[in-house]
Amino acid sequence: MLRVTVWNEFRHEQIHEEVRKVYPEGLHKAIADGLEAEGGFTVRTATLPEPEHGLTQEVLDDTDVLIWWGHMAHHEVDDAIVERVHERVLNGMGLVVLHSGHFSKIFKKLMGTGCDLKWREANEKERIWTVNPAHPIAAGIPEYFEIKPEEMYGEHFDIPAPDELIFVSWFEGGEVFRSGCTWHRGQGKIFYFRPGHETYPTYYVPLVRRVIANGVRWAAPSGAAKPVRGHHQPLEPIQ
Amino acid sequence: MLRVTVWNEFRHEQIHEEVRKVYPEGLHKAIADGLEAEGGFTVRTATLPEPEHGLTQEVLDDTDVLIWWGHMAHHEVDDAIVERVHERVLNGMGLVVLHSGHFSKIFKKLMGTGCDLKWREANEKERIWTVNPAHPIAAGIPEYFEIKPEEMYGEHFDIPAPDELIFVSWFEGGEVFRSGCTWHRGQGKIFYFRPGHETYPTYYVPLVRRVIANGVRWAAPSGAAKPVRGHHQPLEPIQ
Amino acid sequence: MLRVTVWNEFRHEQIHEEVRKVYPEGLHKAIADGLEAEGGFTVRTATLPEPEHGLTQEVLDDTDVLIWWGHMAHHEVDDAIVERVHERVLNGMGLVVLHSGHFSKIFKKLMGTGCDLKWREANEKERIWTVNPAHPIAAGIPEYFEIKPEEMYGEHFDIPAPDELIFVSWFEGGEVFRSGCTWHRGQGKIFYFRPGHETYPTYYVPLVRRVIANGVRWAAPSGAAKPVRGHHQPLEPIQ
Amino acid sequence: MLRVTVWNEFRHEQIHEEVRKVYPEGLHKAIADGLEAEGGFTVRTATLPEPEHGLTQEVLDDTDVLIWWGHMAHHEVDDAIVERVHERVLNGMGLVVLHSGHFSKIFKKLMGTGCDLKWREANEKERIWTVNPAHPIAAGIPEYFEIKPEEMYGEHFDIPAPDELIFVSWFEGGEVFRSGCTWHRGQGKIFYFRPGHETYPTYYVPLVRRVIANGVRWAAPSGAAKPVRGHHQPLEPIQ
Repeated sequence: MLRVTVWNEFRHEQIHEEVRKVYPEGLHKAIADGLEAEGGFTVRTATLPEPEHGLTQEVLDDTDVLIWWGHMAHHEVDDAIVERVHERVLNGMGLVVLHSGHFSKIFKKLMGTGCDLKWREANEKERIWTVNPAHPIAAGIPEYFEIKPEEMYGEHFDIPAPDELIFVSWFEGGEVFRSGCTWHRGQGKIFYFRPGHETYPTYYVPLVRRVIANGVRWAAPSGAAKPVRGHHQPLEPIQ
Repeated sequence: MLRVTVWNEFRHEQIHEEVRKVYPEGLHKAIADGLEAEGGFTVRTATLPEPEHGLTQEVLDDTDVLIWWGHMAHHEVDDAIVERVHERVLNGMGLVVLHSGHFSKIFKKLMGTGCDLKWREANEKERIWTVNPAHPIAAGIPEYFEIKPEEMYGEHFDIPAPDELIFVSWFEGGEVFRSGCTWHRGQGKIFYFRPGHETYPTYYVPLVRRVIANGVRWAAPSGAAKPVRGHHQPLEPIQ
Repeated sequence: MLRVTVWNEFRHEQIHEEVRKVYPEGLHKAIADGLEAEGGFTVRTATLPEPEHGLTQEVLDDTDVLIWWGHMAHHEVDDAIVERVHERVLNGMGLVVLHSGHFSKIFKKLMGTGCDLKWREANEKERIWTVNPAHPIAAGIPEYFEIKPEEMYGEHFDIPAPDELIFVSWFEGGEVFRSGCTWHRGQGKIFYFRPGHETYPTYYVPLVRRVIANGVRWAAPSGAAKPVRGHHQPLEPIQ
Repeated sequence: MLRVTVWNEFRHEQIHEEVRKVYPEGLHKAIADGLEAEGGFTVRTATLPEPEHGLTQEVLDDTDVLIWWGHMAHHEVDDAIVERVHERVLNGMGLVVLHSGHFSKIFKKLMGTGCDLKWREANEKERIWTVNPAHPIAAGIPEYFEIKPEEMYGEHFDIPAPDELIFVSWFEGGEVFRSGCTWHRGQGKIFYFRPGHETYPTYYVPLVRRVIANGVRWAAPSGAAKPVRGHHQPLEPIQ
């Protein structure tokens, strides 16, 4: 059983009635429920208001894959916790970053770029196309699927070219977006998946839940040996 | 259980006593035994002398991942069979190509390049370094491991830049080689792994067996929907 | 001055009045004129009906970058000529493949995949987005530009994941497409660019011409040494 | 003429007699001389002890490509200057990072990983192999070339998988290293090149100078439009 921690900023739900209507127990609960429905995971949640944002060293050490949702309080995430998560990713913990998490400190730190994009809230239609049908994150996903309403995210998305591009979105208003992207960093794997605005019921959409579950499975620690770095004795005689 | 077919040209073993000494039941038997030892696979074998080289449509349709070993008889592999394997890979069957399989018709057809390299048989030492410790094909593999004796393969290896580079080899005689490479083609996944000369007991080396088993697991069909291509009706109104 | 050869099948123009109206001297002439307008190139053209399709060994040896447009007569291109072009690409000649050239023998051979896609002729709007603004092929290209009318090409485009993805298209009818892609094969570089239907005046669009010229510059031979392959003497003593 | 700024920490030269012997006017002078010898560049230098480390906004705005050499004083580089360089790279300035610059703040920030590696100073031989002969950074570079003495850098090098891998090093003591790597970040391009220990005359080696000059040319700003990000009005009607 993969050990998953779903992290949510959990701020909109406290102050915006319209978000609470869609996600009465918080976005993290809906995301966690989606994983439970898929099966094969031991899921816990953690949120910003908890001590150490719920991400103690103990919790991280007991986490195979961390899911991240944040939006309006990115700046309130403690730098020391960001360091700790960064270190765990480089040492093998998987990270699945959702939607507005593109602007989280941890994602920006791992990417090394600005991670900015175009956006618009207009209740519009998104159509997600699979461009890498050989990838396990596309398991059970059709050629394309639609989400409506969704927030628009448009190019240029300021990320490093993904190691693997799996999904590309079409938007009613005329934009495209690289919606499903993977990267390897150290021993860790990262999956970014675009959908998920807080006022839309995206995290109840079965195919969205399926992609997130696939992403978690894909991001599981590899089990390769931890590299040793620093000064190194020669393995062969030097003349 | 993943269904694996191990294909071997099975020619050296018929005519070279020194190969028969190392692989008395054929290279395919040693490779298949390695998979059986790992567990989790249903393994069958197929060879060049069999009707349709043992690769009937029925066998391929019942194969999740095909392993390919060939060397001196690449040109005897029927073009129609190569077409059939190519089609199956593009439709989702995984392919693991070993060592001298770099010059097989199927690998060259999938790569689109010459696939040539430098080589030397000099009983020398190979040291394989893991350069992507986040990748599942590196599961259980140390930072580096050695094989001696091995045949040298050296750069420039005329392949497309791999989608993922997992292992790089150091050779005693002064060369390097991209030894573990992956590609996606259509719905299929391809893993090339360098070690394996027919007069050396490479396929009994536990870590080599481990990498091959990891490669097979990684190359398993993704389960994504088969893309529909050709003429397409609009999904949205066109003005 | 880069030496460019523009190859055109030149068949539609012979038999379809509506194509002749748009490209009275052939698609190759419009493409060549675009390069001349950009400057910095010595341009010649070659077509299917010429002896050896105009692609003699002499012509290819005198070509830095070859541009390819074909559609209805892919199967008439002689396999020996395809071999010759393939060999030249692997030895350093750049190749720019346009639009329906996705189904040409040479492109399929270099890709190793089926190269199929969705398509539709419906006079619709294409909006091309730049997703890699660091790439020289995007020089002088805005964030996005539009072409109308254009033929639709939609995913899944059955190609290897490009080494670099530069443009992604949005189509009015609801599809997306990886419209500007690069690959390295041997010593050669390949650029695929989507726009260009024979009944639409695409090759007179200034930004389309600009991208093609950028692609030619990018695909110029690298000037690296030709790799030597085959048996190799050790560079270091072997114990 | 490309405008190049060569940045050197310039600390070893102040305090270590053996470094001063090899680079009496500083490593930056030797690197700059190499570029001058190649031609086609307007070269200036900047060093840590200068106000703002010589990297004022004005200097950066007047720089097409920045070369970075640092080692013992990475931590003394002001975070505000690192931010400024980072911003310029994302906006199109090229960056060439040499040798021990792998541990500089700017490289780590752009990579998002630890950037650690194995190392050893043992006067040993490095043999650099070209694995991507289609790449312009390999222009004029043979299949392989040797540097002796050199410091060893070994895998696992904790970097994101490079967008393009151009050189791989073989070391006498038994290690391999990805020695020539490129990445795109925002509108900027980054080239890392391994050779260059401060007590060895590496930066006088003609082929090393050639690679650096090639890297600078490759990293030149693309000339693509600067992407606009943030809120975006629809380009098409939304129902």
